[in-house]
Amino acid sequence: MPASEFLLIDRYFSQLGVKRADVLLGIGDDCALLQVPEGQTLAVSIDTLVEGVHFFPDVDPESLGHKALAVNLSDLAAMGADPAWVTLALTLPQIDETWLEAFCCGFSTLAKRHRVQLVGGDTTRGPLTISVQVHGFVDPAMALRRDSARPGDLIYVTGTLGDAGLALLGKTEGLSLGEPQATLQQRLDWPEPRVGVSQTLRDLASAAIDISDGLLADLGHICQRSGVGAMLNLPEIPLSDPVKKHIQQTQKWSLPLSAGDDYELCLIVPAENQAELEERVPGLDVRISLVGQIESSSGIRCLDDTGAPIDIQSGGYDHFRDR
Amino acid sequence: MPASEFLLIDRYFSQLGVKRADVLLGIGDDCALLQVPEGQTLAVSIDTLVEGVHFFPDVDPESLGHKALAVNLSDLAAMGADPAWVTLALTLPQIDETWLEAFCCGFSTLAKRHRVQLVGGDTTRGPLTISVQVHGFVDPAMALRRDSARPGDLIYVTGTLGDAGLALLGKTEGLSLGEPQATLQQRLDWPEPRVGVSQTLRDLASAAIDISDGLLADLGHICQRSGVGAMLNLPEIPLSDPVKKHIQQTQKWSLPLSAGDDYELCLIVPAENQAELEERVPGLDVRISLVGQIESSSGIRCLDDTGAPIDIQSGGYDHFRDR
Repeated sequence: MPASEFLLIDRYFSQLGVKRADVLLGIGDDCALLQVPEGQTLAVSIDTLVEGVHFFPDVDPESLGHKALAVNLSDLAAMGADPAWVTLALTLPQIDETWLEAFCCGFSTLAKRHRVQLVGGDTTRGPLTISVQVHGFVDPAMALRRDSARPGDLIYVTGTLGDAGLALLGKTEGLSLGEPQATLQQRLDWPEPRVGVSQTLRDLASAAIDISDGLLADLGHICQRSGVGAMLNLPEIPLSDPVKKHIQQTQKWSLPLSAGDDYELCLIVPAENQAELEERVPGLDVRISLVGQIESSSGIRCLDDTGAPIDIQSGGYDHFRDR
Repeated sequence: MPASEFLLIDRYFSQLGVKRADVLLGIGDDCALLQVPEGQTLAVSIDTLVEGVHFFPDVDPESLGHKALAVNLSDLAAMGADPAWVTLALTLPQIDETWLEAFCCGFSTLAKRHRVQLVGGDTTRGPLTISVQVHGFVDPAMALRRDSARPGDLIYVTGTLGDAGLALLGKTEGLSLGEPQATLQQRLDWPEPRVGVSQTLRDLASAAIDISDGLLADLGHICQRSGVGAMLNLPEIPLSDPVKKHIQQTQKWSLPLSAGDDYELCLIVPAENQAELEERVPGLDVRISLVGQIESSSGIRCLDDTGAPIDIQSGGYDHFRDR
């Protein structure tokens, strides 16, 4: 008997992630039936990864499974929501069981880490395309919307910025990055959604976004939706050694400011919460850096270490822009 | 300025469908924030359409927008759920605004008809692929699961079966279908999700499925999950004149039994609800036919007009089966 869609879905997907009590009916019916806790709002986000656009054809399928879920969990973190359920629409050119097993392993390991259950799937034949939709819960009063930044609020970012961009640059331009190559590649292929940071700090923040299109573009979204501007202290932007070196060599800030794929969080925090936030920093699994402040006048100003403005041109990643 | 992803999403998608009060935050943030009514369970389903697999490259984009949503609303109907929200992951080879406008028109017209709001979208570049996820509400005690059919229950189907299959056959085999071609093509391109039938009859039914892979395959899913079998009276299967003619010519029942894409409902109804159901039939916008009965022994038996068994070989549509 040839491998059929139904058997395939059954074998790989029906046990993916954890089993949750709020899933009344999972994969295998016309719909999944799901119970949102009382007083909580459903947070929903969807992201698609396409071969040749978001990843290279030779990507490790295990890291691809991880990343497809990670970029979505990152959206939940940016909203201050607790992850719960996920659906997966997988379009495959053919059935390659080795590939599928590795993909599901990467997906499932991350799902288990965040107590997420796969509740719906659709497998179709076609060019490799992965659409993942996550569902989480958030107290609506605590949701980290993009439209709630106010002048005077502080701008924090998690981790270091530009690492994934440098790895991508290394790959596309054949740049030799030496020994850090593996670490940078890890940052590109295995992004870590900042769910823990979000859960620890969400009651102190007023707004947030995850940095998928570059800090300037993503902070720009917050500014636009909130009707504000921002000032960034470039020397405070957290950088890994390879990115620092690249900036020194090229005199360009485009990697930490405009490269996507880091999936770090940009958190906007009212100044009166700064002390409380700093008290909680030791409990975080990743560094968090104060990089600037929200201002009332529109636009994003970048300052150097003397406080002088630096002109930054490049925006973030845009699928349909001529490149 | 080149058409950018952000502007594109804004222009076409932010006002798609209706505006609902239970959408606290729609498109334009990291997540949508959605409020499920108290006492109701969230029903979720996802379906992907791929060019060259689910539709022809020359398909009318307006009908494609309609169908992408319709096949998902059909899943909600099959669960007895009221439609509420939808997300759309659209992968496009390029930006063609005429195409997009027509696609969104087909999608939005159907969304408005069923009071559905688009709450999330992701537009990426790549081979044309459309993933739609619908969200609806259902009282968990009223949900039409596949695992609740019992021996003695009656099997009903809506509309007529095999029309979409005949249209497809006409197209792929260059069959001349004469005057009914347009009507059959309409059935293939503009399927009507049976939301109204589901809402009117769901309290009388014990189980349901929508017929997307053919009656035998889909009824087979119900039988398998419920641990039962079924008997089908072939002369009772509702047929349009062209399909009736095709069966007479070919002596094959494969169109109404095994062709997909009709998106009619198969409803399983306890015998004691038959009288009440028949009282409600005049209020339905589509015919409903009693075609068989659930049995305790496994397998699906097909009987002819003398009550003699007919051997039916073909199963339903399967994306990865050798064809």
